[in-house]
Amino acid sequence: MDRVVLRDCGPRDGLQGERPCPPAERVALVHALAAAGLPEVEVASFVSPKAVPAMAGAADVVGALDDPGDPRWWALVPNGRGAELALASGIRQLTVTVSASEGYSAKNVRMTVAESLDQLTGIRATAAPPVLVDAVVSCCFGSPFDDVSGRSVADVVATIRGAGVDRITLADTTGTASPRRIATVVDRVGPEVGLHLHDTRGTALTNAHAALALGVRRFDTAVGGLGGSPFAPGAGGNLATEDLVLLLEELGYESGIDLGNLLPIGEHLSQLVGHDLPGRVMAAGALAPFPD
Amino acid sequence: MDRVVLRDCGPRDGLQGERPCPPAERVALVHALAAAGLPEVEVASFVSPKAVPAMAGAADVVGALDDPGDPRWWALVPNGRGAELALASGIRQLTVTVSASEGYSAKNVRMTVAESLDQLTGIRATAAPPVLVDAVVSCCFGSPFDDVSGRSVADVVATIRGAGVDRITLADTTGTASPRRIATVVDRVGPEVGLHLHDTRGTALTNAHAALALGVRRFDTAVGGLGGSPFAPGAGGNLATEDLVLLLEELGYESGIDLGNLLPIGEHLSQLVGHDLPGRVMAAGALAPFPD
Repeated sequence: MDRVVLRDCGPRDGLQGERPCPPAERVALVHALAAAGLPEVEVASFVSPKAVPAMAGAADVVGALDDPGDPRWWALVPNGRGAELALASGIRQLTVTVSASEGYSAKNVRMTVAESLDQLTGIRATAAPPVLVDAVVSCCFGSPFDDVSGRSVADVVATIRGAGVDRITLADTTGTASPRRIATVVDRVGPEVGLHLHDTRGTALTNAHAALALGVRRFDTAVGGLGGSPFAPGAGGNLATEDLVLLLEELGYESGIDLGNLLPIGEHLSQLVGHDLPGRVMAAGALAPFPD
Repeated sequence: MDRVVLRDCGPRDGLQGERPCPPAERVALVHALAAAGLPEVEVASFVSPKAVPAMAGAADVVGALDDPGDPRWWALVPNGRGAELALASGIRQLTVTVSASEGYSAKNVRMTVAESLDQLTGIRATAAPPVLVDAVVSCCFGSPFDDVSGRSVADVVATIRGAGVDRITLADTTGTASPRRIATVVDRVGPEVGLHLHDTRGTALTNAHAALALGVRRFDTAVGGLGGSPFAPGAGGNLATEDLVLLLEELGYESGIDLGNLLPIGEHLSQLVGHDLPGRVMAAGALAPFPD
């Protein structure tokens, strides 16, 4: 199976730490990513605008999409109230964050892991099938609080599976993953997961490459590598969509994404947020062929 | 075989594109790297000071080393005259650059590849054993002039082996390598080569990881990821020593290098050159354990 599915989180995980952009600009970004071939885009976050000002207007963003219920669009919801707002906006795919780290959960959402798992169960009840729910698990490969291991992550994943979610995505929230850690966790939970990798230590692409070899076929990325949790000090940007697309092209995987159409999106996004982006291929360009 | 040998090229490939630093600072950098456990350091380049002002005073650098003839130290020589100067300084390990790309060779050294191979033969005659000669081959995984392939690189490597050098190091001069290209070339020439990787497209660590899996055990790096050829537009920095050391630690390879001692060297180097360095681990720090 050589098909790899990328979900671009730039409009959500990328923009959430930036100065607020108008919803119309965020909608244009989502549509541009879809036009470049992204099969999935995380378009908004139904969080409190007080907590994350850049995500204000989530319902406006979803409502202005070509088809709010299109299976390409995902929105993050932090709790049951967020799920209700998201579903009312018309979106039909929800990401829900839970944490594998008690310390990070306390800091990030002021809940124990057990409480956040209860909340996930509640969201699943609110957002019943055919709505899709993807549980994104923070700190699966290390945490700032040193309170996770392969075994503890596998235990959390097993509990989440018991909650009846449609997908699980393992997040490397603070960029502590390595090929060994990826293998440790994937060996325990299986390759039917997504990976949400951050590039804090320059390892995101290496970890994606290692995961591909283990059979993982879903990855969260962000155009230009924008991003990083505002709640996780030192969190680097997301794995840049362009950088992973180039690797996939070189390795012969099919992503459906056109790198040539993707590159100008990063340039535009850089202008939109007013600073350089960490993505490397957007700066250096695509590759000429190298025959065997 | 789990021993991996790193050669830090920071004092040469790193500093050559910067404003000139006094030889005493360069000597201190070399000694600090050796004290952190680097088994090999490229300490200087015996090029024309007019062509590369930052490398002026190469003989002063070598002469001020604890032991100029120590097998840890390497110096780049561009031609027979450079080799004579290097040997007169007391150093006993020479790197010599040749190119796998006619276009790059013409631009970089104004010679055909055949002419540079003839020159390599001459240097080998001047620098007879027990002096070591390492032929560093530019553009082994792509060139700005699209004139290389796995086959053409293998042909150049075979010719170099015929010249009786002690080592061959394959350079990704403009950061076009990928795991596929690494495998293509290593399959043809064997794993008994070094790799000199640049991070133009953020792929250096991924390529090193792929090469490790193929049996490659020698890597050129630069502390902090400093570097990039002043003659190759868009060439990114070298693979950061710290970033590779962290990966090696995670994977269980032995490098003999102490990451804790290495990190302050990058900080000092950043102050010395007056700008941030691209290395990621020096910014983000080492990893806490992640038990299975």
